[in-house]
Amino acid sequence: MGATRVIETLVLSLLLFLSGSSATQRQKTRAGPRLPCKQMVFYFHDILYNGENAKNATSAIVGAPAWGNRTILAGQNHFGNVVVFDDPITLDNNLHSIPVGRAQGFYLYDRKDYFTAWLGFSFFFNSTQYRGTIIFAGADTLNKTRDISVIGGTGDFFMARGIATLTTDAVEGDVYSRLQVYIKLFECW
Amino acid sequence: MGATRVIETLVLSLLLFLSGSSATQRQKTRAGPRLPCKQMVFYFHDILYNGENAKNATSAIVGAPAWGNRTILAGQNHFGNVVVFDDPITLDNNLHSIPVGRAQGFYLYDRKDYFTAWLGFSFFFNSTQYRGTIIFAGADTLNKTRDISVIGGTGDFFMARGIATLTTDAVEGDVYSRLQVYIKLFECW
Amino acid sequence: MGATRVIETLVLSLLLFLSGSSATQRQKTRAGPRLPCKQMVFYFHDILYNGENAKNATSAIVGAPAWGNRTILAGQNHFGNVVVFDDPITLDNNLHSIPVGRAQGFYLYDRKDYFTAWLGFSFFFNSTQYRGTIIFAGADTLNKTRDISVIGGTGDFFMARGIATLTTDAVEGDVYSRLQVYIKLFECW
Repeated sequence: MGATRVIETLVLSLLLFLSGSSATQRQKTRAGPRLPCKQMVFYFHDILYNGENAKNATSAIVGAPAWGNRTILAGQNHFGNVVVFDDPITLDNNLHSIPVGRAQGFYLYDRKDYFTAWLGFSFFFNSTQYRGTIIFAGADTLNKTRDISVIGGTGDFFMARGIATLTTDAVEGDVYSRLQVYIKLFECW
Repeated sequence: MGATRVIETLVLSLLLFLSGSSATQRQKTRAGPRLPCKQMVFYFHDILYNGENAKNATSAIVGAPAWGNRTILAGQNHFGNVVVFDDPITLDNNLHSIPVGRAQGFYLYDRKDYFTAWLGFSFFFNSTQYRGTIIFAGADTLNKTRDISVIGGTGDFFMARGIATLTTDAVEGDVYSRLQVYIKLFECW
Repeated sequence: MGATRVIETLVLSLLLFLSGSSATQRQKTRAGPRLPCKQMVFYFHDILYNGENAKNATSAIVGAPAWGNRTILAGQNHFGNVVVFDDPITLDNNLHSIPVGRAQGFYLYDRKDYFTAWLGFSFFFNSTQYRGTIIFAGADTLNKTRDISVIGGTGDFFMARGIATLTTDAVEGDVYSRLQVYIKLFECW
């Protein structure tokens, strides 16, 4: 009798605990260490069209403020320039390595007194290793590393969410730049 | 006595199991079949401004590379063209059906040697059927079907996440195109 | 004996309940009241470049349809204009308050017969109060209040998701506008 009562009490507590955790979950406040469910490192290579490199260029200025044009990046930290890109993605930092995918989308320079940019792009994979897309959005800066958001994905990256840490790996003038992208997914389906 | 001990053991196991599943949840790795919590099919109709159809056009070129202009899509698979659109959404594939909403946003052509585009747009609903927005981002290609991401939503689609499968339903020259959008939400609040 | 059996039954029911709730979770249909896990109110201030205010302007037209230019917003509710901005964020509605961050990104006008716009931008914080970014996307309208989506975040806003309610707080001609942004996060890590 006493034992059954103890059971009842414990089971009730558990059920309360469960419904409690379920309520918390609706609000989804998470505590504790953050562990990625998937991690990957890639490099992508951007060659900006400058009027003379039509053959090699992987990106082009497509928008500019009234004081700019579409061949030379505008003054004031390129404020207002919109660039569309289709850059090869490689597993190491060698531009000539076989690409495993394409980084495709746009960035726009959005600060006059300092360099910052807004990025919206996808990693597009169609290889034996990966198939699908990872969608990114966020703010790029001159910091050594900066985090942008992984806001979605398809195929192998179905419903992905997470963070991508960008590191500038090389810059050559206004034309060539190479970014390291360290992807940490925290939602994997 | 023995029974109470059994209870304690079982309850402890359960609590461990619970905290275990709670830890997994923080990382959110999901296994098993993927079941949409909501599915919908829509069509949207794009009529691109070509210099002569100002009255009917629902979209316009607003960005172009140095070698392009804003009336004719640029060469090299339109690389660098940015298009803003405000397209009617219908429930069937008839352009003249009563629209249930508007597809509004932009796409930009982002590949030279092949057709691909990057899309950022909303479905905007303000009817008796639906009220609110669904936000999309992702990569469009020439594949028969291609998946983009549902990255958010408001109103009836509060906090939505999922996948939208695009199928080109009709193309007439460079001016008219119709897309079928099959939306599968996997997060519904 | 009887007690042990009761325990077994109850524990089994609990495990079934647990696996059941786990299955529901994979599909993530949530019911019940929606409680934000974090709420914040900010203001941001936009001064659009009009050819004469280069010094004060915080935004500039960088894309326009064939019938527009980059100094004056185009006719037909500015359809096709793309604007890049870098606007100060303040805690109150005073343009001259010390900014706590920058609102950076773009908007594009996307409707001919009515005012609507598509927004993609970040709140960028690097102060003692906040460090990190909040990423937004969605549809802006002439409604008194309108909701856009919080699609991601970094730093203090790691993995954030939610809704931001925009209210136009002031408009002075085509140049100055001030938005109140009431952020409600429903996913906090």
